[in-house]
Amino acid sequence: MRLTQWTDFSLRVLMYCAACEHRDLPVTITEIADSHSISRSHLTKVVHQLGAHGLLETTRGRGGGMRLCKPAAEINVGAVVRQTETDFAMVECFDAKINQCTLSPQCHLKGVLQQATKSYLAVLDGVTLADLVAPMSNRAKTHKVAMPVTGKARTAPRG
Amino acid sequence: MRLTQWTDFSLRVLMYCAACEHRDLPVTITEIADSHSISRSHLTKVVHQLGAHGLLETTRGRGGGMRLCKPAAEINVGAVVRQTETDFAMVECFDAKINQCTLSPQCHLKGVLQQATKSYLAVLDGVTLADLVAPMSNRAKTHKVAMPVTGKARTAPRG
Repeated sequence: MRLTQWTDFSLRVLMYCAACEHRDLPVTITEIADSHSISRSHLTKVVHQLGAHGLLETTRGRGGGMRLCKPAAEINVGAVVRQTETDFAMVECFDAKINQCTLSPQCHLKGVLQQATKSYLAVLDGVTLADLVAPMSNRAKTHKVAMPVTGKARTAPRG
Repeated sequence: MRLTQWTDFSLRVLMYCAACEHRDLPVTITEIADSHSISRSHLTKVVHQLGAHGLLETTRGRGGGMRLCKPAAEINVGAVVRQTETDFAMVECFDAKINQCTLSPQCHLKGVLQQATKSYLAVLDGVTLADLVAPMSNRAKTHKVAMPVTGKARTAPRG
């Protein structure tokens, strides 16, 4: 049983942004790609989708990048996973279009798996993005300079 | 989020056998293959594995087939799924061999997803194979002749 790689990458992008939410400069795709060894093109699609879901706001050009649209403490992990997973079709009979199982009309499996999935998501519903990265936020503040922040290297320091 | 097709087929084989557990003749791979439009070779592997897990006993030759090793009411669905799923590696960091996520040491995601998976399986732990097929058992008794029972057609009636 697995979540999709899309959800995995989406969570990593959001967690990275959450860990850097108090940083002056926005997070860049390049720094996440470097940090996680994920291709930039794949991350670009993920970031675009997260923007469309209202989770990230992005700015273009020099010094541009992405930020969380709201505080990490207000972003629910269960809600994110519901948005990023393509489906929760645990077995074939969940999808009426492809279902060939002749047991379906009398079978209780679908109902049981739906209940199990509900319990799975209920755990995630109790967690925010801030809960996931609490120690990382501290790390991001302390080791700010050591992080591969592409945008920062190209612009003059503020203040 | 999905269970593997292997688990899907395993559950269908076990449920079919559970529905026929009071039938004289054992269930054949051919009848399950016909009923579910699944290839015989794929089902043969699934049945072999279920036999190795101590869930099915198989007999060869004329009138041969498979039966549940114990009553359906004693076969726990959670235990079956734990045996048939290759893993519960919800995201990359669950597998230390392939994990490239640099957030891992400070990240709480793994623990949260493990807790969610635990809740998922807890629901299945409360269900037996008999619970899944209760109405089907009645159907199997009533419509015994209509079912494509290959073995039965080849042998003389008992008693």
